Amino acid sequence: MEAPKVIKGISQPPSVNLSSVRKLRKKRPELNVETIVEGILAGDRVRLGQAITLIESTKPSHQIKAQAIINTCLPHTGKSFRLGITGSPGVGKSTFIESYGQYAIEQGHKIAVLAVDPSSQISQGSILGDKTRMFHLSTHPNAFIRPSPAGASLGGVARKTRETIMLCEAAGYDLILIETVGVGQSEIAVHSMVDFFLLLLLPGAGDELQGIKKGIVEMADLIAINKADGENALKAKHSRRDYSNALHIMPPKLSGWTPKATVCAGLSGMGIDDIWKTQQLYKKQMTENDFFKKNRQNQAKYWLHETIQNQLKDLFYKNESVKNVLKEKEKAIIKGELSPFKGAEELMTLFLG
Amino acid sequence: MEAPKVIKGISQPPSVNLSSVRKLRKKRPELNVETIVEGILAGDRVRLGQAITLIESTKPSHQIKAQAIINTCLPHTGKSFRLGITGSPGVGKSTFIESYGQYAIEQGHKIAVLAVDPSSQISQGSILGDKTRMFHLSTHPNAFIRPSPAGASLGGVARKTRETIMLCEAAGYDLILIETVGVGQSEIAVHSMVDFFLLLLLPGAGDELQGIKKGIVEMADLIAINKADGENALKAKHSRRDYSNALHIMPPKLSGWTPKATVCAGLSGMGIDDIWKTQQLYKKQMTENDFFKKNRQNQAKYWLHETIQNQLKDLFYKNESVKNVLKEKEKAIIKGELSPFKGAEELMTLFLG
Repeated sequence: MEAPKVIKGISQPPSVNLSSVRKLRKKRPELNVETIVEGILAGDRVRLGQAITLIESTKPSHQIKAQAIINTCLPHTGKSFRLGITGSPGVGKSTFIESYGQYAIEQGHKIAVLAVDPSSQISQGSILGDKTRMFHLSTHPNAFIRPSPAGASLGGVARKTRETIMLCEAAGYDLILIETVGVGQSEIAVHSMVDFFLLLLLPGAGDELQGIKKGIVEMADLIAINKADGENALKAKHSRRDYSNALHIMPPKLSGWTPKATVCAGLSGMGIDDIWKTQQLYKKQMTENDFFKKNRQNQAKYWLHETIQNQLKDLFYKNESVKNVLKEKEKAIIKGELSPFKGAEELMTLFLG
Repeated sequence: MEAPKVIKGISQPPSVNLSSVRKLRKKRPELNVETIVEGILAGDRVRLGQAITLIESTKPSHQIKAQAIINTCLPHTGKSFRLGITGSPGVGKSTFIESYGQYAIEQGHKIAVLAVDPSSQISQGSILGDKTRMFHLSTHPNAFIRPSPAGASLGGVARKTRETIMLCEAAGYDLILIETVGVGQSEIAVHSMVDFFLLLLLPGAGDELQGIKKGIVEMADLIAINKADGENALKAKHSRRDYSNALHIMPPKLSGWTPKATVCAGLSGMGIDDIWKTQQLYKKQMTENDFFKKNRQNQAKYWLHETIQNQLKDLFYKNESVKNVLKEKEKAIIKGELSPFKGAEELMTLFLG
């Protein structure tokens, strides 16, 4: 995915061979923080893309630069509505986003579409890996699409996405859609970085049959039964009623918001306006009762401590002395030859020594 | 609670004044690891109590000794059935345990009753703080009762309890009951150290009205509607049916076990034998399908990593440089003057510097 983007950035025709592009890329002097920030604040998509590439890089010098860029952009962040969208593979997330994004653009918004998919490295981009699935959005000047950052650990991927949200906001995108699959831990990470959480489901089957993990339904602010037109219409209506009932007996949310269930069809656009209205209503109510602000503050604190704890774990588990004996200690513990606590103590001694 | 125990240990009449007891206590030479372990393996309750006091101590020299004791006892641990019992305050946990424990003793078992209650320091022993609530068990030679260790953090309390389980097993207790309240995070910790998880509920009201947190019902291997006799009988029958239905539509457990719902009354002993039979059936099935062993191995690995991660957090948040600026950084983050990631980086630099 990276190579074509570079080609675009330096206006090369797509027929150029990759090795010459790499040479060109190397020769181009690295931009400084000020230039990149200026570009981002002016809404320059190329600069935004470059900054995100720095965020995604594991090179320490890139990381230092990325942090400087984010902190300089900080006063210009936060002014968007952050919408999390989850659902199992096949529910039609891309088509829904294509439709919802275009609707938002028609209402005068600039939208950014991001994804959190820790499996993307293995599965070669299972979600949002292919921009062609959002053909109209990917070519629209008021939309910015970025696939999930690669990375083995969810913590790393989520952190990069949260940083990318901030830069997109600084670049003037005022609706950020963050897509994830509802089948793992990633939607908890996404839930902790968005204002509103939308769960897409298929008509007919219950959420568990669709592979949606326990607790996801409880996190949703809105459940939309997608692909609810044509022959699915009746099944979708029943599903909607079932979820409406289920949502009503759930304990009240901290936000005071009562989650809703609705039907839609990403392909035909059916129900998109209703979802938009619900999102607007939510924003209005949550701004009025101050939950919007408080939630953002809690999320920021959460990310501080989450980042610290991830870095501590990284330090420990990537430590060479620890790595050398960890498997061995685990085996001894499983065999009952070593207590887990003594094992932890021995590993901590190695780590600190 | 400590003082009376010391009095008992050195056979002083209860009328002795505390300062002279303290003097006596200080004069007594500290026992070495071998003597304590010998005592534990011989089933000596005083030695067992002393070892648990070492586990609960924050003094580094006591901790070293405690770890040595646990590791020496290790070959003699694991041979018990570990039963977690949770339920909200007022559900009748103590009375149930009194009844269930006596039943188990009649079947020829030696039982230990422990508790995980991270709030005990603040609330002065909200559960198991008062042995008089289990009058018969507390005086029975085949029962050993130990209140929850004190401690501000759940991680610390849970760890101490898990270590105490091991020593109780080495001392020959073959049924370990671990009590906790079902209203916080503590039942997750208890669930990760037991073989079987029992949820006590009151007749009539749903689990959420009883303050039982989401997810606890899903963790239960058996739900017992307690106080189900007399005028509560009909309500209890309905509750039992409702939970039976709810348990049946839940996704299957890793263990292959289908959780059950039953009724009982701790005070009259009604239903206690049924619960005992269910526990026996569970043990038989889980031994046959090897889940019992695999679960224990997974729990041991979990505790290794849990302990490491708690110690890493402790190291970080108790670091003086970190403590000095943490609040300040949090404030800047909440105000939007500092990104959570930059803040984490700055704190990590202080920590590592």
